[in-house]
Amino acid sequence: MYIPIARSMLFVFALSANVAVAQDNASQSDQAAVTAPRQVVLIIGDGMDEQQITIARNYLKGASGQLQLDKLMLRSSMQILTTEDQLTGKPVYVADSANTATSMATGVITSRGRISTSAGSDEDLTTIAELAAADGLRTGIVTTASLTDATPAAFAAHISLRLCENPEAMVDISFRGITLGDCSDDLKANGGKGSIAEQLANSSLDVMLGGGAKHFSPNAEGTTESVTSLARQNGFQVVTTAAELATTEPDKRLLGLFAPSTLPVRLQGENSREAEEPKRSWLNHIHPFLGSVTQPEPMICEPNPAFAAVPNLQQMTEAALSHLSYNNSAGFFLMIESASIDKQSHERKPCGSIGEVQQLEEALASVLAFAETHAQTLILVTADHAQAAQLIPYVSLFNGFPIPTFTPGKLAHIITPEGGHMAINYATSNFMMEEHTGATVPLFSNSEGLGRVPSFIQQPQLFDIIRDYLEL
Amino acid sequence: MYIPIARSMLFVFALSANVAVAQDNASQSDQAAVTAPRQVVLIIGDGMDEQQITIARNYLKGASGQLQLDKLMLRSSMQILTTEDQLTGKPVYVADSANTATSMATGVITSRGRISTSAGSDEDLTTIAELAAADGLRTGIVTTASLTDATPAAFAAHISLRLCENPEAMVDISFRGITLGDCSDDLKANGGKGSIAEQLANSSLDVMLGGGAKHFSPNAEGTTESVTSLARQNGFQVVTTAAELATTEPDKRLLGLFAPSTLPVRLQGENSREAEEPKRSWLNHIHPFLGSVTQPEPMICEPNPAFAAVPNLQQMTEAALSHLSYNNSAGFFLMIESASIDKQSHERKPCGSIGEVQQLEEALASVLAFAETHAQTLILVTADHAQAAQLIPYVSLFNGFPIPTFTPGKLAHIITPEGGHMAINYATSNFMMEEHTGATVPLFSNSEGLGRVPSFIQQPQLFDIIRDYLEL
Repeated sequence: MYIPIARSMLFVFALSANVAVAQDNASQSDQAAVTAPRQVVLIIGDGMDEQQITIARNYLKGASGQLQLDKLMLRSSMQILTTEDQLTGKPVYVADSANTATSMATGVITSRGRISTSAGSDEDLTTIAELAAADGLRTGIVTTASLTDATPAAFAAHISLRLCENPEAMVDISFRGITLGDCSDDLKANGGKGSIAEQLANSSLDVMLGGGAKHFSPNAEGTTESVTSLARQNGFQVVTTAAELATTEPDKRLLGLFAPSTLPVRLQGENSREAEEPKRSWLNHIHPFLGSVTQPEPMICEPNPAFAAVPNLQQMTEAALSHLSYNNSAGFFLMIESASIDKQSHERKPCGSIGEVQQLEEALASVLAFAETHAQTLILVTADHAQAAQLIPYVSLFNGFPIPTFTPGKLAHIITPEGGHMAINYATSNFMMEEHTGATVPLFSNSEGLGRVPSFIQQPQLFDIIRDYLEL
Repeated sequence: MYIPIARSMLFVFALSANVAVAQDNASQSDQAAVTAPRQVVLIIGDGMDEQQITIARNYLKGASGQLQLDKLMLRSSMQILTTEDQLTGKPVYVADSANTATSMATGVITSRGRISTSAGSDEDLTTIAELAAADGLRTGIVTTASLTDATPAAFAAHISLRLCENPEAMVDISFRGITLGDCSDDLKANGGKGSIAEQLANSSLDVMLGGGAKHFSPNAEGTTESVTSLARQNGFQVVTTAAELATTEPDKRLLGLFAPSTLPVRLQGENSREAEEPKRSWLNHIHPFLGSVTQPEPMICEPNPAFAAVPNLQQMTEAALSHLSYNNSAGFFLMIESASIDKQSHERKPCGSIGEVQQLEEALASVLAFAETHAQTLILVTADHAQAAQLIPYVSLFNGFPIPTFTPGKLAHIITPEGGHMAINYATSNFMMEEHTGATVPLFSNSEGLGRVPSFIQQPQLFDIIRDYLEL
């Protein structure tokens, strides 16, 4: 379904990799490199495209600053692939987080809304976490979304529709009376594996940390016990606060549920403001060259008070790394998601997205520190798809023309800490939510990726890279 | 003004570069590598950001296809930097082609509209082409825009405002009665170097191929002869057709002027259509949940009949390579621009932009073929800044909701050759032209870039990379 990397290129990369890795790890003996466990940490910034990264960089580090991301040795580009929901469907040019997570988790292109099931035929697709667990490696997922949300779910669950997150959301799923889908075929009563939450509780994962407690509280299908109880029966210790997270048993499976659904984000607009529509005078409505347009007032980003109530992504990351590496000579696979870069962008909240890039950066810092003391740790950072935010000129390129220009859609005018003016627009949809966009996304890697991560890959190839590195 | 690449990283890259280059050029003797001339070909896709590349890839190669660009060994990311027009101005987060070309050509960050002059102080900044010429290398510029347009101009001219393209556009420059600027200080009468066209005619360039004949036809300041005559006096042979271009003298300077201004583009929308506004029913104007919205009719891209009248970018590229390498043991610097990726995007014409990415691809193919037989040819491909086009879902992610959703701004619905549906929106401005956007842009390189092009650079560092490669 996708083009393999040219062998000649791989050869060149492999050669250069050997040299480079030898340099990087010069202090470690060859013997250690042979016997040390191998681990892969895949960090996904949901919706973290070049626009989101640039906006966050400008705010967090300044226009000429550098993010942790920018300092990673390898930067590649990842082509996103989606298909119609048919066996041989035509390509679809804009993805959702379900089909993209499936691509990364299973190496197979599927249709929007699907969680590690195949387009058209609805067959379960084996995930990298399942392969790793079967080979004796530990596995974990960490997210700022619900654990049952599309991105984390695709690493350990298999279902036809991402909305089927808990046992009560399996039949005739509707929102405000509008039917959005149905997972009846996936009911246990019908021979399926049940909802996403139930599948996670029955999964082989060792660590699950994130939000989504409300999806674990309903009774598991056909039982009188909650999905959380099911998880406990399967050996998970369950924690719900940062304090509890800090004192877990290191040798026991770990389920952290820190909020009913998505965790609170780190930053918000001043006075909780989001992007707003420029206000056109009545004369401007009569003719676009007439009258005036009032742009949204400038704002800064401020801390979201609710954020302090939950463990942050870095704390969850460090807990996961600690659990997965504890007394472990077999290695592990860990997926870490900063989910609300995307979610805040859907809601036209640039400060929210910026803060969640910051959370990803902090998690990355912890993973890099871990890799310093754990050889053979491949770090991959990427996005699942592109998103709506656009950094546009604060002063129009055409400001010489005395015409009231303004952006369609909604605009946020943010004053950065260095005193610059960022104008960010959201203009993909008139709906209450913005749409994703279709651009390729960046893929970053540490030096362990040399010889393995070429300059351009298709999203499903990420699965191959991880599988090959872990020798599964 | 920008952060140097970490030396340790350069070291690792340099090591891997040596191995890789040895593999690549295994058939060439070490002796040849030592004595062969060095050349740099810098290909600029104006406005060619990840969105533009993805849209073009989908149309030209299919969603899972690969462009020539995608096959280049190195892919990096380039941070765009712009400043207010003051000596110590604050950063500006969205650039224009004048200041970005200045960054690449001179290694100095400047303000929008400036052509290789410094922000605030208006001093001339030495360009890479001037440095190369002073060192005995040949130099050339090739563009699908006017040769006097911002991107090519910045490699050989120095002026405070990009609009001052010819001797008649130096004082009180206006458009439809609106004053847009003034270059009086740059008049020869005032001790300046004159308009961009005059500076090009007096430059050290060996090859100039593109459009912009109308800027060379006015009389040079203070003379009764045209700028074209001035160029002839300076040793340029002047050609105006593809036939003439094919029969030029190989050892004489070459000026090709193939159209009055920008060259015709390769592709256009069906029946010359561009992106259009979705049409809302009267009921939808009353409330966005009511009524209906009619999306623009689908279209394919079709050839632009005017395109055949001019040499294409590949023909100009091959002519330039031939001239610059003819009997030349000193090497050369060549800048090639596909200008109308940007210009067509300003005009909301996605087919136009797609065709100009195709032109860039063809030019790149010729440069790659040249590098096959000319060792030590560093090929760099990049964009100067990001642009307005966004690939959005053809079927909304929220299509389950029975609400008439539509995109703000303007939309083109393109049927691709593989039968997919691309929805491309333009929604940065209500003005007659779209705005640029501020995202970092990709930078590609062939294997000669190994050890020289790190995973992330600031735009002015491109100047350093070229200068160091050419040992200037």
